[in-house]
Amino acid sequence: MPSPGRAAPPSRLSERAAVPAGPVRPGPGARALLTPAAVQVHAGFWHTRRQVNARTSIPQGPALLETAGNLSNLRIAAGLADGEFRGAYPFVDSDVYKWLEAASWQLAQPGSADDGRLADDVERIVSLIAEAQQPDGYLNTWFDLRKGGRCYQDLRWGHELYCAGHLIQAAVAHHRSTGHPELLAVAVKFADHIDSVFGPPGSGKPIDGVDGHPEIETALVELYRETGERRYLDLAGYFVDRFGHGLLGGEAYCQDRVPVREATDVEGHTVRQLYLLAAVTDLATETGDEELRAAAQRLWDAMTRTKTHITGGLGAHHDEEDFGDPYELPNERAYCETCAAIASVQWSWRMALLTAEARYSDLVERTLYNGFLAGVSLDGERWLYVNPLQVRDGHTDTGGDQSARRTRWFRCACCPPNVMRLLASLEHYLASSDDRGLQIHQYVTGSYAGEVRGAPVVVRSETDYPWQGTVTLTVEETPTDEPWTLSLRVPQWCTEYRLHCGDTVLDATDASITDGWLRLERTWSPGDRVVLELALEARLTVADPRVDAVRGCVAIERGPLVYCLEGVDHPGGGLDDIVLDTTQPLAAKHRPDLLGGVTTVVAAGRRRTIDDPGWWPYVNADGADPGHSDEPIELTAVPYYAWANRQDSSMRVWIPTL
Amino acid sequence: MPSPGRAAPPSRLSERAAVPAGPVRPGPGARALLTPAAVQVHAGFWHTRRQVNARTSIPQGPALLETAGNLSNLRIAAGLADGEFRGAYPFVDSDVYKWLEAASWQLAQPGSADDGRLADDVERIVSLIAEAQQPDGYLNTWFDLRKGGRCYQDLRWGHELYCAGHLIQAAVAHHRSTGHPELLAVAVKFADHIDSVFGPPGSGKPIDGVDGHPEIETALVELYRETGERRYLDLAGYFVDRFGHGLLGGEAYCQDRVPVREATDVEGHTVRQLYLLAAVTDLATETGDEELRAAAQRLWDAMTRTKTHITGGLGAHHDEEDFGDPYELPNERAYCETCAAIASVQWSWRMALLTAEARYSDLVERTLYNGFLAGVSLDGERWLYVNPLQVRDGHTDTGGDQSARRTRWFRCACCPPNVMRLLASLEHYLASSDDRGLQIHQYVTGSYAGEVRGAPVVVRSETDYPWQGTVTLTVEETPTDEPWTLSLRVPQWCTEYRLHCGDTVLDATDASITDGWLRLERTWSPGDRVVLELALEARLTVADPRVDAVRGCVAIERGPLVYCLEGVDHPGGGLDDIVLDTTQPLAAKHRPDLLGGVTTVVAAGRRRTIDDPGWWPYVNADGADPGHSDEPIELTAVPYYAWANRQDSSMRVWIPTL
Repeated sequence: MPSPGRAAPPSRLSERAAVPAGPVRPGPGARALLTPAAVQVHAGFWHTRRQVNARTSIPQGPALLETAGNLSNLRIAAGLADGEFRGAYPFVDSDVYKWLEAASWQLAQPGSADDGRLADDVERIVSLIAEAQQPDGYLNTWFDLRKGGRCYQDLRWGHELYCAGHLIQAAVAHHRSTGHPELLAVAVKFADHIDSVFGPPGSGKPIDGVDGHPEIETALVELYRETGERRYLDLAGYFVDRFGHGLLGGEAYCQDRVPVREATDVEGHTVRQLYLLAAVTDLATETGDEELRAAAQRLWDAMTRTKTHITGGLGAHHDEEDFGDPYELPNERAYCETCAAIASVQWSWRMALLTAEARYSDLVERTLYNGFLAGVSLDGERWLYVNPLQVRDGHTDTGGDQSARRTRWFRCACCPPNVMRLLASLEHYLASSDDRGLQIHQYVTGSYAGEVRGAPVVVRSETDYPWQGTVTLTVEETPTDEPWTLSLRVPQWCTEYRLHCGDTVLDATDASITDGWLRLERTWSPGDRVVLELALEARLTVADPRVDAVRGCVAIERGPLVYCLEGVDHPGGGLDDIVLDTTQPLAAKHRPDLLGGVTTVVAAGRRRTIDDPGWWPYVNADGADPGHSDEPIELTAVPYYAWANRQDSSMRVWIPTL
Repeated sequence: MPSPGRAAPPSRLSERAAVPAGPVRPGPGARALLTPAAVQVHAGFWHTRRQVNARTSIPQGPALLETAGNLSNLRIAAGLADGEFRGAYPFVDSDVYKWLEAASWQLAQPGSADDGRLADDVERIVSLIAEAQQPDGYLNTWFDLRKGGRCYQDLRWGHELYCAGHLIQAAVAHHRSTGHPELLAVAVKFADHIDSVFGPPGSGKPIDGVDGHPEIETALVELYRETGERRYLDLAGYFVDRFGHGLLGGEAYCQDRVPVREATDVEGHTVRQLYLLAAVTDLATETGDEELRAAAQRLWDAMTRTKTHITGGLGAHHDEEDFGDPYELPNERAYCETCAAIASVQWSWRMALLTAEARYSDLVERTLYNGFLAGVSLDGERWLYVNPLQVRDGHTDTGGDQSARRTRWFRCACCPPNVMRLLASLEHYLASSDDRGLQIHQYVTGSYAGEVRGAPVVVRSETDYPWQGTVTLTVEETPTDEPWTLSLRVPQWCTEYRLHCGDTVLDATDASITDGWLRLERTWSPGDRVVLELALEARLTVADPRVDAVRGCVAIERGPLVYCLEGVDHPGGGLDDIVLDTTQPLAAKHRPDLLGGVTTVVAAGRRRTIDDPGWWPYVNADGADPGHSDEPIELTAVPYYAWANRQDSSMRVWIPTL
């Protein structure tokens, strides 16, 4: 779920090609609130990835959910079939809801609704969900079928409110995209049931509690935005503030160790932490709560400074899917769950809207192009649950959901429909507007449409980003009688750029550009053109020395892309003995034939053959260098997002220099 | 489980102060088989640790097993009490058996049997076990109490044969130490039951299968040694060879991916792999099977070259307690289960006896002094299940069995009684003899007694090892009419030494010393003295460059000890920003007041304060060095085995040099 903003009441489907996002209500303490702009992506990098999502990933969903048993569970709960609950986890309903959210956003894309099959699948599953709902509004097939309906008695592990949250998000997407009321009615009925059950001591409600896996909180804020019903916002605020008080046993895993208002670092289960923080930011946006805003800023800083992989990936431990300690950023055992990357994009985008600060969209960009996109294969049919930064030459894969090899579907299938919904709603995360103008956060070929003081503004964009750094923007609609500001984000990775706008030329030496935004305030005319040239040199990156795992290593980056080496491109010896020569220049080489068309980066290196070390691999540092012979080798790096799309192979992002 | 060798029938307890180990039967293809020598430890480093084991750890066992429910389960199974099975795992019986094995070995120590309490505890629990055994010989409280006695139907997870193995090992220890027949009778009856049930297709036995957790195999070899019954050896051989054929689903975790005769690398669950390999070596020893011998040698080499931490610790993954990939040796997430260190000692010692090669005892030494001994606190009351090589300054511990903080007892309490049994039987691993003489593998203050061509030889030893490198050996008993060889292991870490023996002076320049053994062949007289001086300089060690986790780091070692830094010794800033200056000398400083008396190593270093890196910790490698200010600091390293015995603190073994 995408973005704050209440939708205008839909009229005809075709008019909502880009889902219009209504105004955010600034709260009393809010500053600089931005509103999502309506964006269309017409061509280029993300268009290609979204086409695969629309044509392969999303359409295959219903069959995969059928095979895995998720839809069968709903039919049984609806009394339409007999049988046993199927699925390895209590939260399998959420897979259906996330797919439904993805498909609903997809139906809002130009042309998608013309394909009757997807709309039919959506309406068929919506009807099934409505039939499975109990008269009082409750809905969860695990508790219905396995637990005799003993609901809300295992909040720590049951995931009932988590599933409800995904149902609500799906309903908001479905209503906003199609205008159909049916699923929203299911969500409202369930939300009202939850609101009648949960509340603080003294409220007269029977349960004072929260769900072990946050998700309902941000969903309730979205439901508030969609319906205008304040109770949902209040309920979200109640839930957020009840974490950290021991209702779940006090574990960091469940975000229950410390109240978020007091927290100083992100901790515990990564996705749970991030979903909770997205809700914290939503609440700060909608209510103007300065304490929540400060907590969100503080925790975002702590996370990015010490717990974020270079890919934007989050989560250092397989065990408990935990954030890990500060600067604990392993490579081969990086967890970096695909869902965590998605949650990070959702949270950071909310922070960008709340604060108007560019760095939040810097992380969105980095995460989208790297940690997130690696989660799905180029053909849209295979997935990674975890996203390691290294796979060794001798890697023995034990399979399962956490495999380093792409998998068709998972026992815990949270990631695939999560990828689908983010790709299908990607345009929600690309631009914003406010009373002063339009802000372009991410560069695509398409159009950005916002509203400035009641007047529509539309800017067309053409770019071959991220392969090329030139972005050509043409004003298409504008009030011609009053000035507004076109703001362009200068990516954090970019140290050299030039902007042409009529007679204006700005570059990186311009002192006015200090906060990541290039701001062009003027009275615009249709046809005005702005050309932004971002220097896209391949570069070597080093980490803070406290990141122990990558000491003595560099990463290759170009533009927003993090690169990696794959064993398949380096036959004859694998990657474990490779050293990069930092004194030699890097060369970018576009390869339209490779991996759907990528720019590779070629570097000079050598392959080190170490003399037989005997049985013990640790030697006296005196006399130091273990004997070895070196052979020069050309290293070919490919974008990290495209790895693991050929044969099983070794891979590494961080390359030794010594 | 200690050492091959059938015990002489016991006569009086006091005569078996050091448990005599009978001759190993060399098989047809065996070469260089050694026999364990009888050793007594009188004083010094290991004596102190064993005193704590004898006076604190072992005596507290029964109360802890009572609290955890293990003994209650046996009483219920015996019909002596009512109640429910208690314990988190199906294999909790094995905790009792391992404690019983520890206590039994302890009873063989001089003076221990005089403490009637321990002997009473042992006999009381032995009787309880005998009463809990079913008439047909089967015994497992989990299956009795929880599974309605449906035995051998869940070999993958049930751990029935694993528990049986520990029962058999305990019975061998009990019989060998005390001469009492009761527990051995229980073990024999259970082993006969297993032998009647398990066998290859066509054998007429009902089940062709193996246990998901190896242990029964090496126990059956021990039972064969204790009873002379060949069926037990054959059954062990059958089990070993049935792994790797898919009987357990083909998973590496259960050692079922590939037959051990074909395996080229250690893999899967670390302790399972090591217990299996101990049995492989036992079988090679007893049967002369050259293929098993070759497999054991091949796998030991693979393990030590690429999958062993500098502490001797084994196991890279928390997830599935897995070995991990070659050169995947993380620090903060090192698993290095204490039980794996114990299993490694057991396996390597068997390899030393089988091959007479010194390197196996090199690894025994390294593991005993580091990866193993860190598993128990100096006071003998608290434990580590996993043994990380780094704990960060900002470490958030989630508690549980895998905590980086010492714990009183575990839900899965495999490690504590395993430590107890190894410490109580430590003398089994220290020396050997054969027809040519006596081999001293580990240096202690005490006496080494073997038999050379029928004649007893006894050598007394005095040393302050590992703090000092001088070992003074005095021949106490010897045939005076024929020569024999006294062999002294020169530790693999030692590059400079001098040996004085009468007129003979040998040092590291002597070309005859090529395989780790100093061999002194002569006709000895009582009172002959040999002085070995091992140079004990503190040193810096680097790893094979393929060990990514420690690139740009050094470890401090001195003698057999690996050192670490603890935050508690470096107030005012923790350890994450510390750099060691490799150009400055190291200084050893004995501190009798510290940690029970340790030699510390002092090094020069600096504390690096990094300029505020902003929100993103990855920077362009050009312009390189992130700004920082450095402050000189004296680094104090303590032996790794002694870490985590003061307040909770950060710790690191590998120290950055850049």
